[in-house]
Amino acid sequence: MTHFDSDYLEGCHAKILETLTSTNMRQTVGYGRDEFSEEARAKVLAACGNPDAEVEFMVGGTQTNATILKAILRPYESVVSVESGHINGHEAGAVEGTGHKILTLPSHNGKFDLDELETFISEWRANTNDYEHVTWPAVVYISQPTELGTLYSLDEFRRLRKICDDHQLSLFADGARLGYALASPANDVSLPELAKLCDAFYIGGTKVGALFGEAAVVRRGLIPHFRTVIKQDGALLAKGRLLGVQFSVLFTDNLYQRIAENAIACAEKMRKGLTAKGYELLYDAPTNQVFVALDAKGYDLFSRVTTFTDWGHLANGRRVIRLTTSWATAPEAIDTLIADLG
Amino acid sequence: MTHFDSDYLEGCHAKILETLTSTNMRQTVGYGRDEFSEEARAKVLAACGNPDAEVEFMVGGTQTNATILKAILRPYESVVSVESGHINGHEAGAVEGTGHKILTLPSHNGKFDLDELETFISEWRANTNDYEHVTWPAVVYISQPTELGTLYSLDEFRRLRKICDDHQLSLFADGARLGYALASPANDVSLPELAKLCDAFYIGGTKVGALFGEAAVVRRGLIPHFRTVIKQDGALLAKGRLLGVQFSVLFTDNLYQRIAENAIACAEKMRKGLTAKGYELLYDAPTNQVFVALDAKGYDLFSRVTTFTDWGHLANGRRVIRLTTSWATAPEAIDTLIADLG
Amino acid sequence: MTHFDSDYLEGCHAKILETLTSTNMRQTVGYGRDEFSEEARAKVLAACGNPDAEVEFMVGGTQTNATILKAILRPYESVVSVESGHINGHEAGAVEGTGHKILTLPSHNGKFDLDELETFISEWRANTNDYEHVTWPAVVYISQPTELGTLYSLDEFRRLRKICDDHQLSLFADGARLGYALASPANDVSLPELAKLCDAFYIGGTKVGALFGEAAVVRRGLIPHFRTVIKQDGALLAKGRLLGVQFSVLFTDNLYQRIAENAIACAEKMRKGLTAKGYELLYDAPTNQVFVALDAKGYDLFSRVTTFTDWGHLANGRRVIRLTTSWATAPEAIDTLIADLG
Amino acid sequence: MTHFDSDYLEGCHAKILETLTSTNMRQTVGYGRDEFSEEARAKVLAACGNPDAEVEFMVGGTQTNATILKAILRPYESVVSVESGHINGHEAGAVEGTGHKILTLPSHNGKFDLDELETFISEWRANTNDYEHVTWPAVVYISQPTELGTLYSLDEFRRLRKICDDHQLSLFADGARLGYALASPANDVSLPELAKLCDAFYIGGTKVGALFGEAAVVRRGLIPHFRTVIKQDGALLAKGRLLGVQFSVLFTDNLYQRIAENAIACAEKMRKGLTAKGYELLYDAPTNQVFVALDAKGYDLFSRVTTFTDWGHLANGRRVIRLTTSWATAPEAIDTLIADLG
Repeated sequence: MTHFDSDYLEGCHAKILETLTSTNMRQTVGYGRDEFSEEARAKVLAACGNPDAEVEFMVGGTQTNATILKAILRPYESVVSVESGHINGHEAGAVEGTGHKILTLPSHNGKFDLDELETFISEWRANTNDYEHVTWPAVVYISQPTELGTLYSLDEFRRLRKICDDHQLSLFADGARLGYALASPANDVSLPELAKLCDAFYIGGTKVGALFGEAAVVRRGLIPHFRTVIKQDGALLAKGRLLGVQFSVLFTDNLYQRIAENAIACAEKMRKGLTAKGYELLYDAPTNQVFVALDAKGYDLFSRVTTFTDWGHLANGRRVIRLTTSWATAPEAIDTLIADLG
Repeated sequence: MTHFDSDYLEGCHAKILETLTSTNMRQTVGYGRDEFSEEARAKVLAACGNPDAEVEFMVGGTQTNATILKAILRPYESVVSVESGHINGHEAGAVEGTGHKILTLPSHNGKFDLDELETFISEWRANTNDYEHVTWPAVVYISQPTELGTLYSLDEFRRLRKICDDHQLSLFADGARLGYALASPANDVSLPELAKLCDAFYIGGTKVGALFGEAAVVRRGLIPHFRTVIKQDGALLAKGRLLGVQFSVLFTDNLYQRIAENAIACAEKMRKGLTAKGYELLYDAPTNQVFVALDAKGYDLFSRVTTFTDWGHLANGRRVIRLTTSWATAPEAIDTLIADLG
Repeated sequence: MTHFDSDYLEGCHAKILETLTSTNMRQTVGYGRDEFSEEARAKVLAACGNPDAEVEFMVGGTQTNATILKAILRPYESVVSVESGHINGHEAGAVEGTGHKILTLPSHNGKFDLDELETFISEWRANTNDYEHVTWPAVVYISQPTELGTLYSLDEFRRLRKICDDHQLSLFADGARLGYALASPANDVSLPELAKLCDAFYIGGTKVGALFGEAAVVRRGLIPHFRTVIKQDGALLAKGRLLGVQFSVLFTDNLYQRIAENAIACAEKMRKGLTAKGYELLYDAPTNQVFVALDAKGYDLFSRVTTFTDWGHLANGRRVIRLTTSWATAPEAIDTLIADLG
Repeated sequence: MTHFDSDYLEGCHAKILETLTSTNMRQTVGYGRDEFSEEARAKVLAACGNPDAEVEFMVGGTQTNATILKAILRPYESVVSVESGHINGHEAGAVEGTGHKILTLPSHNGKFDLDELETFISEWRANTNDYEHVTWPAVVYISQPTELGTLYSLDEFRRLRKICDDHQLSLFADGARLGYALASPANDVSLPELAKLCDAFYIGGTKVGALFGEAAVVRRGLIPHFRTVIKQDGALLAKGRLLGVQFSVLFTDNLYQRIAENAIACAEKMRKGLTAKGYELLYDAPTNQVFVALDAKGYDLFSRVTTFTDWGHLANGRRVIRLTTSWATAPEAIDTLIADLG
């Protein structure tokens, strides 16, 4: 049985393990100042088309989100997210653990309604009465793709940028699954465009072919002493070479996006197969996550043929499940799944 | 040229990479609930001779120290360390970053003078005048071996335990280099004894044969919701299997201690070679770190033949350097080093 | 012109200033161990009918909320509040500043819908899948009266207690305006009943006759080293006698509730006067806050005759204002206000 | 019996209570935007000769220290203090509670040795090896007078300023007892000079004639959104008028310094009386604290005739006690004390 619970069920792309093995006994300095890390930084910057940003590698997504936000925010500042944002719902209070409030707006298929966001920030800024009784929103947090697998368009990114510029906020994009955005035919935001429009973002490796690792890309000057904050948060890997090797491999010959394309193709194949069988898909998500609304009988059937993530209930009593493909999914596994559903 | 800066200059023991490779495409659940992690837990507990402790794996030492201390300490509580303790000097304020004060006592070759510690705690507890104006020491932090490569003896461990029992503190041992303690002929504290005498400790993998990883062993009941704190601190690895595989390999056929013995043998060989050449060694450290006092000429010579860590100055103007061996050091590299010193 | 912005516009009840003056040059020990504080503690406990609780005095409401929650909560724990809760909206992120997430539920006239609360907690406890990815709700925060001047009934308090008992949470009541609850004819929760049903609460002085000060009443054993946490939070007043004198005066001959009755009578008089003039009141709030829905013309009129607090907009474009009476309001000022409204 | 434990044993200067009483029923806005606070700000700035600084009032010293340091410091930054500094020893870990490390240097009669400080900072800044493993010292914390009643001279203040300028640190002076420095004949640092040389400092009211209150004076631009941080820390008094009235009274006709002169005169009288009787005084402290070294018999005698603060033991077994005078001390009480010592 193939599992579709998430996109971290396997290890990593074979090329990474090969390179880790072939370089294993080379001695390098620690903490990300080694030659592999420097090479990976250069490749990431080249892919971003932004030679002046700062690149630091961390191990996981929650760690990267919390460290970057802690590093940007002053004590009186807060971050704005949709309610369904990963930092708000699935990081065990990591952001609040660093002392900062998350202000939430409703999720519209995982995204902000940008008019709502604009109004929210404008009214907040205008409310000078409450000035000292409320936090100061200083960062807008989004993810690309979102928790629901949806995408912000380039137009929406530009609008986000404008809102942030108009009200002096930083724009931070969680890219834990960024590869699956870049590889989606529905996506019109290239990596260089995203890099230009965000103050900070990260390129997720853990879910896109690496054993682990996220490449944080930060506008130079935004975060002074970034490496010290990373160390303080326990996020500075001693053998930084491991992150360097992985991102160096992923950003050679566009491997990062190429392996993500497999996930998109598999997800699309799954969507077609499920739709053909009459299943209702939710959220219009064009990346590697597939959300299915199921009645009790359907839920039972899926439970027999694979594993997945429970994603809550609909008002009408039906349940939602999430199936996830990845760089590692075999297309045949989709055929089998569809066939097993009878 | 072989480098002796630290014990994290290479990757990992070959057996680990082999197992990571052979298990790479197996699908497992995430966050350390996979079968590799469960197997590793069982092996670690067996090695500790304490089937009732809780074992969780984290990625690095600073992370493990800060997460465990944050999890144990209440807001009004502090941790007692020698001034040279790693948490006090080399973790970028990680413990204070979680809100807790470190109370320091002088370092005696990296260790507490246990009479000083006993007096310190007794007087603190007796000083009810200042009750609400000072923090409450609640954890004694040590490392085995210490920052200076020295060891607490079993008698000293028992005395530490008694001090903690008498004054209701927890005893926490940082074992980032624990393998090099266990492998030292000078050591008389076995892993089961250490496990029995400490409330919490960790077995360091990063410096002893793993790519990364530390196995935290905690008295059951000491830390409620430990895994949630780990997640909140960004320390819960998505592909927990990577930690499981590594510790499972290290704790099969006593590999962890066996590879550490190489480091000890190399360090001993280095100490003999240097002593024979008239160099002065410091701290009487019987583990994998070698501290040498050098005049300007000696420092210059060492700088030409290898790399090392600067360890400060002596009162007489001489400098101290640290050379470190590891599981990966080739004995021949020691011969070369000694020969190169002329 | 009499102002109705809030209930902290004047100084304090005359009796307090008299006693501060008559005791001014007596020497006492500091930090709340003086005889005035001990006397006040005894009087507060007597009024609570609970001789075994712990009473500590702090200076203000935000301070008291944040200190108590920080003291109760472990790092992985969160507090549940309605969205309109004071800790969520008007304390500049103080609770998050101590590292803890606030989980919010919709406000129903300032209160929880207790079925919603029960469901929320039950489902959270049942969701063991997400166990380590989410915080652990450990405290239910309410205020009595609420931000909207409404009251929990005794039946509702008992239900809150049961929900907390069933799911092992603490119940914490913010009583910044508690006097105005106790003095309301609509209230059926006596101070001893509230004291019995809550794990922690505080009796607000700042808004009910004192210059400043809140009396925190905490179940003995709930918060170890409470005074140290108070000191750490900068909330331990050097001249604790000032808090002792004030609460001793307020809890002599039931002064606290008696002066609050004036606020209730004035608010009731205001509500009658406004209703008679055809104004629409909101929230059915039976305490010292009066919420009025106004069209542009009405808003303009109110702005000419008094000052108040803006309380947002209604969907239909009308505005909401809040008028507040207090222990210090002269009944004649209400007559004048109503008359001035023409 | 007159007590000499500390300088907060009495209430406040009579003029303050009179003004609080005469203004008691005036309605003002809250949170320090009232006319009394604005008047007090203007008077404090005039006394400082620095019309461009920012003045905010807080309630107590620990609160003011922690709030200012939290507001200035970024996560990776630390504060440098002498070991005997109040923030290091008597604030229950408040600074660490906000996430920041205190780096300590030896105390020389309560003060830095400025050569030691210069060397410490220079070497720290030069040690780029450890860059990301250690915090970044960003504030120098001193108090004037110090914990031991000693004073920094104007020359020393200028040197402190230069050290801070050379290495880009802020200079912060804790002035909990500043009045007693200003009133000492041994002092050569006027308030305008101190205001010019520090980035931030506060003028202590609690120990110098007020019921409570500290006036923080901060270089404009140093702390953005200062009032929000104050609110977040529970340090923004609702009835800010109370602080306004007190500092307005204290800074009218130089009352603040004039009442402090009484404490100095009484302390000087005490020092002369004790010296005449052969007692050994310590620390050469020219302000309102008197430190006496006592053998067992002397300690016993003092214990019978007054109360004081225990200040530890000397190497030779003798004890140190501290006697404190204040604005409220009657000169006759000193005569009585000396007479009672026989």
